[in-house]
Amino acid sequence: MKMTAKPIENLINQLNKLPGIGSKTAQRLAYYIIDMQQDEVEKLSNSILDAKLQVKECSICSNFTDEDPCKICSSSKRDNSTICVVEYPKDVEAMERTRCFNGLYHVLHGVISPQKGIGPANLKIRELLRRLEDDSVEEIIIATNPTVEGDTTALYISKLTIPLGVKTTRIAYGIPVGGDLEYYDEVTISTALNNRRELK
Amino acid sequence: MKMTAKPIENLINQLNKLPGIGSKTAQRLAYYIIDMQQDEVEKLSNSILDAKLQVKECSICSNFTDEDPCKICSSSKRDNSTICVVEYPKDVEAMERTRCFNGLYHVLHGVISPQKGIGPANLKIRELLRRLEDDSVEEIIIATNPTVEGDTTALYISKLTIPLGVKTTRIAYGIPVGGDLEYYDEVTISTALNNRRELK
Repeated sequence: MKMTAKPIENLINQLNKLPGIGSKTAQRLAYYIIDMQQDEVEKLSNSILDAKLQVKECSICSNFTDEDPCKICSSSKRDNSTICVVEYPKDVEAMERTRCFNGLYHVLHGVISPQKGIGPANLKIRELLRRLEDDSVEEIIIATNPTVEGDTTALYISKLTIPLGVKTTRIAYGIPVGGDLEYYDEVTISTALNNRRELK
Repeated sequence: MKMTAKPIENLINQLNKLPGIGSKTAQRLAYYIIDMQQDEVEKLSNSILDAKLQVKECSICSNFTDEDPCKICSSSKRDNSTICVVEYPKDVEAMERTRCFNGLYHVLHGVISPQKGIGPANLKIRELLRRLEDDSVEEIIIATNPTVEGDTTALYISKLTIPLGVKTTRIAYGIPVGGDLEYYDEVTISTALNNRRELK
């Protein structure tokens, strides 16, 4: 006979479904939540539901947003001649943190993966091509990850965008800044070798 | 200007307040939650609120419960001559997992800690003594952690229970089963030495 109170067990089970939350962590979090102030628990519970209910995809770039078009697409300060193509909304966050890119984004919501049954039609590629119809876009920067799927997707998109006369680039892949050769695999190092630049 | 949608940012902030959830993990969880099925999100959100609202302390043992008295205190199958005293409700879980203890529990909800301003009056010690008033309890097993606070609390309780004629014991501390001497600190090893038993 299980002696844990039902609502605690239920909370542990729900938390345990989240990625990276094992049963030990779920238990620790559950007891922490029960010890929290009630208004803080309400805030947490509401923020989860609100994020799900209020967040939609931007009709232009498909990034997550609570207003349509999203803040980036509707900003007058962004350079709308460049579109950076990423796999997921979290990649937009990562790019924005650099403060180095001032163009627009396009979120594919995945990569081509025959194994998972994901083809080009399941991604926001049609929506990307539609954005190229007016001539304001001069460059597409493809920032999908350097994986087989990410590379395939980059190649697939470039085959469609280059014939339209849009400059299509891919961000550089190599040894991360601060990284140490010793710790990186052969593929990363050979990529870094192949992408070497002449010092002048 | 922050470009993340407000409800996402809010969810990340709320998750970030939980112990062991850093900003990276909070972000990963937030995007995962937004991608979950809506009914699953509702279950998660409700389980958090329900755990807070429905879980109370048992009026006998102070363990978390949704019915009063709790399942353990009201069970006819438990041996009510033995009470195991623990710091927190999660310690009851840990003891129950062993399936080795069939007595009752008493949850102190903390340990004596002058630094944190926690004295005996802030713990459920008075409630423990009240349980000893009828003569059914024969043994108190103190299972507070082997820390300065845990030891102090054990000593404090034993000074009150021994004069009442109740056998008072403390669980053994030493090298964990499967552990390796090499990995344990001097205090653990010297405790294990002092608590040595004669092999016969």
